[in-house]
Amino acid sequence: MPLLTNKNSIFEVIKEHPEQVRRLWIEQGSERILDEYIREAKAKGIQFRVLSKEAFLQQFKGVKSHICLERDEFSYVDPDQLLQRIVSSGNPFLCAFDGVQDPQNLGNIIRTAVCLDADALIIPKDRACAVTDTVAQVSRGAVEHVKIARVTNLARYLEELKKTGVFCYGLDERGGSPLWETDLKGPICLVFGGEEGMRRLTGEKCDAVLQIPTNHSFPSLNVATCFALAAYEVRRQRKAGHGR
Amino acid sequence: MPLLTNKNSIFEVIKEHPEQVRRLWIEQGSERILDEYIREAKAKGIQFRVLSKEAFLQQFKGVKSHICLERDEFSYVDPDQLLQRIVSSGNPFLCAFDGVQDPQNLGNIIRTAVCLDADALIIPKDRACAVTDTVAQVSRGAVEHVKIARVTNLARYLEELKKTGVFCYGLDERGGSPLWETDLKGPICLVFGGEEGMRRLTGEKCDAVLQIPTNHSFPSLNVATCFALAAYEVRRQRKAGHGR
Repeated sequence: MPLLTNKNSIFEVIKEHPEQVRRLWIEQGSERILDEYIREAKAKGIQFRVLSKEAFLQQFKGVKSHICLERDEFSYVDPDQLLQRIVSSGNPFLCAFDGVQDPQNLGNIIRTAVCLDADALIIPKDRACAVTDTVAQVSRGAVEHVKIARVTNLARYLEELKKTGVFCYGLDERGGSPLWETDLKGPICLVFGGEEGMRRLTGEKCDAVLQIPTNHSFPSLNVATCFALAAYEVRRQRKAGHGR
Repeated sequence: MPLLTNKNSIFEVIKEHPEQVRRLWIEQGSERILDEYIREAKAKGIQFRVLSKEAFLQQFKGVKSHICLERDEFSYVDPDQLLQRIVSSGNPFLCAFDGVQDPQNLGNIIRTAVCLDADALIIPKDRACAVTDTVAQVSRGAVEHVKIARVTNLARYLEELKKTGVFCYGLDERGGSPLWETDLKGPICLVFGGEEGMRRLTGEKCDAVLQIPTNHSFPSLNVATCFALAAYEVRRQRKAGHGR
């Protein structure tokens, strides 16, 4: 993800990961509107350059923004380190995705994950969308706050997770008991399929497969929406659970 | 929305609204894969035509699908009729959107609304995305199952709704009490802003503005996600509420 053009994403990188910024460009005439960005960049010691309209247009053909940021590649978390951290952390809330292909979906998932305080996401290395430019843009800067581990073999990684005491719950429209009837307050990893649902092998690795009860004649939620509802339920139980 | 190319959407139209189908085209060589579509079309008395590859490509330039359906425009529900139905219905669950602009978001909202049994959606006529081709494709055919009313003045319509005994709850990250602490089992209309949040006037028309508690340093959920969580909460309370 070398080039960012979305203002929210750019601001998040400057604020959260200034060490990963290579260069920042601003189009002449936009300095006043982008004053907040310039001040933050100065405060973080980031070099920036104001380009004339012509030079900006030439360098960033087709870009609709007046600000561009070049940054390092997205840094994934090491899967083994994640496992170690889980063992020592109190009450992890992890989410694994078995082959989400659409960058819109992955970007939305990351945005929601940060809003609803998921601790880390786990995605496979193969046959799955990685954290690309588009994903970063759609996430509205949430990629700067999220931990993501890429694993070679998701089924095996779930086995390792279970050994650390984490419960793995699959989510599927054909699942068993409703999501809201399951206690999600302990250490958990929620497991989702890709756009085409969950693979058999992955489902079998789960301690249980839960269901979000939907309309019988039109049951199929988008995977990012399915994740959002499940993450909300976890948050509700953990925050509100005390009082209920 | 004259031309549909998404297979799910096409199947939903054939099944649910055959009277709105003008024409159905299938590319030669795909008859076997699309057998289910052909049988359903025959059963519903829909005329279809198989075109040679060349003719199909020429007629539907740039279309990646092997099946195309031309249909009537989307039929909105009359807002006054919706009000009358609400008065006579038991326990309506309505949702109003104050200016969603992005067809991806509206399509996702419609898909989720049908999955989670919202009774009707209310959108403004101006400065808001209508039910376009893209919206229909993104909804994966859910537009065939949803009731949508377009109103000239949303604030005034909310006033009318309130007179019928419906409670209007706004949803906003800066809202008051958490969503899950509010009783949503009665007749309600949830009110959402557009991509840029809720306008002051719209918020003021609501009986209360509720909050989905999110991460303080990254609070902003996508409007379609915000809607999904709220619709889930309504469903949870209405379905599971008995036992809790």
